[in-house]
Amino acid sequence: MSTLGIDLGGTFARAAVVDEHGRIMASAKVALTERSPAAVVEVIALAAAAALAEGGGVTVHGCGVGAAGQIHRDSGIIAVAPNLGWRNVPLGALLAQRLGQPVRVVNDLAAAAWGELHAGAGQGATDVYVVFVGSGVGSCIIANNQLVRGAGGVAGELGHTKVVPNGRRCGCGELGCLEAYAGGHNLIAQARELLASGRSTVLAQLAGGDPNRITPVTLEQAADAGDLGAREIHERAGHMLGMAIANMVTVLNPARLIIGGGVLTHCPGLRRHVMEGVQAFASNTSREGLLIADAELGDDSGLIGAALLAV
Amino acid sequence: MSTLGIDLGGTFARAAVVDEHGRIMASAKVALTERSPAAVVEVIALAAAAALAEGGGVTVHGCGVGAAGQIHRDSGIIAVAPNLGWRNVPLGALLAQRLGQPVRVVNDLAAAAWGELHAGAGQGATDVYVVFVGSGVGSCIIANNQLVRGAGGVAGELGHTKVVPNGRRCGCGELGCLEAYAGGHNLIAQARELLASGRSTVLAQLAGGDPNRITPVTLEQAADAGDLGAREIHERAGHMLGMAIANMVTVLNPARLIIGGGVLTHCPGLRRHVMEGVQAFASNTSREGLLIADAELGDDSGLIGAALLAV
Repeated sequence: MSTLGIDLGGTFARAAVVDEHGRIMASAKVALTERSPAAVVEVIALAAAAALAEGGGVTVHGCGVGAAGQIHRDSGIIAVAPNLGWRNVPLGALLAQRLGQPVRVVNDLAAAAWGELHAGAGQGATDVYVVFVGSGVGSCIIANNQLVRGAGGVAGELGHTKVVPNGRRCGCGELGCLEAYAGGHNLIAQARELLASGRSTVLAQLAGGDPNRITPVTLEQAADAGDLGAREIHERAGHMLGMAIANMVTVLNPARLIIGGGVLTHCPGLRRHVMEGVQAFASNTSREGLLIADAELGDDSGLIGAALLAV
Repeated sequence: MSTLGIDLGGTFARAAVVDEHGRIMASAKVALTERSPAAVVEVIALAAAAALAEGGGVTVHGCGVGAAGQIHRDSGIIAVAPNLGWRNVPLGALLAQRLGQPVRVVNDLAAAAWGELHAGAGQGATDVYVVFVGSGVGSCIIANNQLVRGAGGVAGELGHTKVVPNGRRCGCGELGCLEAYAGGHNLIAQARELLASGRSTVLAQLAGGDPNRITPVTLEQAADAGDLGAREIHERAGHMLGMAIANMVTVLNPARLIIGGGVLTHCPGLRRHVMEGVQAFASNTSREGLLIADAELGDDSGLIGAALLAV
């Protein structure tokens, strides 16, 4: 039995027909032109129709949506979606009416983690901790084979745990968040500050003097090339990530730790810091039997997970 | 329908007949004379018989045991119980045979948290984080109305998260654990080190010069009296506890945070640090709707929770 999975980002909606094993049978992607709820619902419906057509008219039973933002646990209401500028949008109800299908809405990270659990690196486990480091730092806890969503639907916000009291300001407005040091956006921001300070010739060379060409990969290359300023930023981020993830392993005692996201995928040095941090700082008992695995589904994890959550 | 709850400590076993609302109908306490599994099973059976007799011959349906140590998730086997010097003792099976009742064995903190959830400060909530600071620092996560026990049964070990890389040695053998700074045993140890250094006349006065008379309360009194060394230990412990608990609130987004244990109960200054830390460092979104409550059941929480887990 197939279901429909939707990945709703800030600039596009993807839809896929997914079978009960988490295989994508057909998919489509449509850009968001405007961000009103009505317009977004239409774009999702378009993407869904395109995926269904590509799937040769297969029947689907239910639809799951993964969306960036804070989602009320049971109602399908999006409390806050910064990318879309939404507050309290009943996306689940609107979409159910438009598609004539029951719709379940979850946070994009929860959808991705659920995808990895059932069709990726988490298969066979019931207690999994999933960490994604991309532009931000997010995580998802699966315990007893269930998503831990939290009372307000915002569980998993590892990026907003505090690592430096009254430290660097984070995009969320608070001070000293892990994400303010180790998220992709903030790795870039710190590298640009370094470039602007004139203290890093290596970084200036790698970026051709253009701050807009700096990525987390550029930063890692500069650190690898021995640039002291770059190395400081890079090592601090790696150390903080490793320590924070290790402490979550100690408290959650998962069977599997799954790591993914653009930054960890493309920056092997940071990934190594995380692995070493877990090794060094997670308690011995929590590491007995722990398997650390890379996320396997890439950008498809959210689509697949959303669809499987609708089963 | 009543069940039997057992609280198995390092020096005694308590047993209680508990009704389905978590009320203790009758209870008994018997000292452990020796620590072989067979002897301990007999002591538990004695305590149970005494509680049942005191209950006037009420019939119980099932027995739950809360025991300090690492418990295998489903088998009732105690993997490690340092207090008893046990390794891989099938307590559940031994006791089931002796009592002629189905027996469920869980970690003592999980039992206590379950008791608070259903008969104490957690009533009505399904997502709760419980922290006990006594001689050690322990916690228990309840998500979706289920205990999060972890793949190896050691979830919740907040005391063994690392707060200082390669810091103070903990009783567990690892370095820099939260418990090494903020657990009751280690608060006392640090205060004794201070006393031995001769740097604290206040502490020397309060303890009458006798290291054995120092408790966490003595330390807090010395800190309150302006003793700089005592204040340093006390503030550091309070700060570390507050930060660690705040970060767990951020990641778990519980509806309720329940705090208890001897140290937090008897040291209002440390309790205040924890409250302020959560206020200052947990993310704003995770604190929306969060209720912080003191544990209500005191020493009975484990007995009650163990019994309710057997229902």
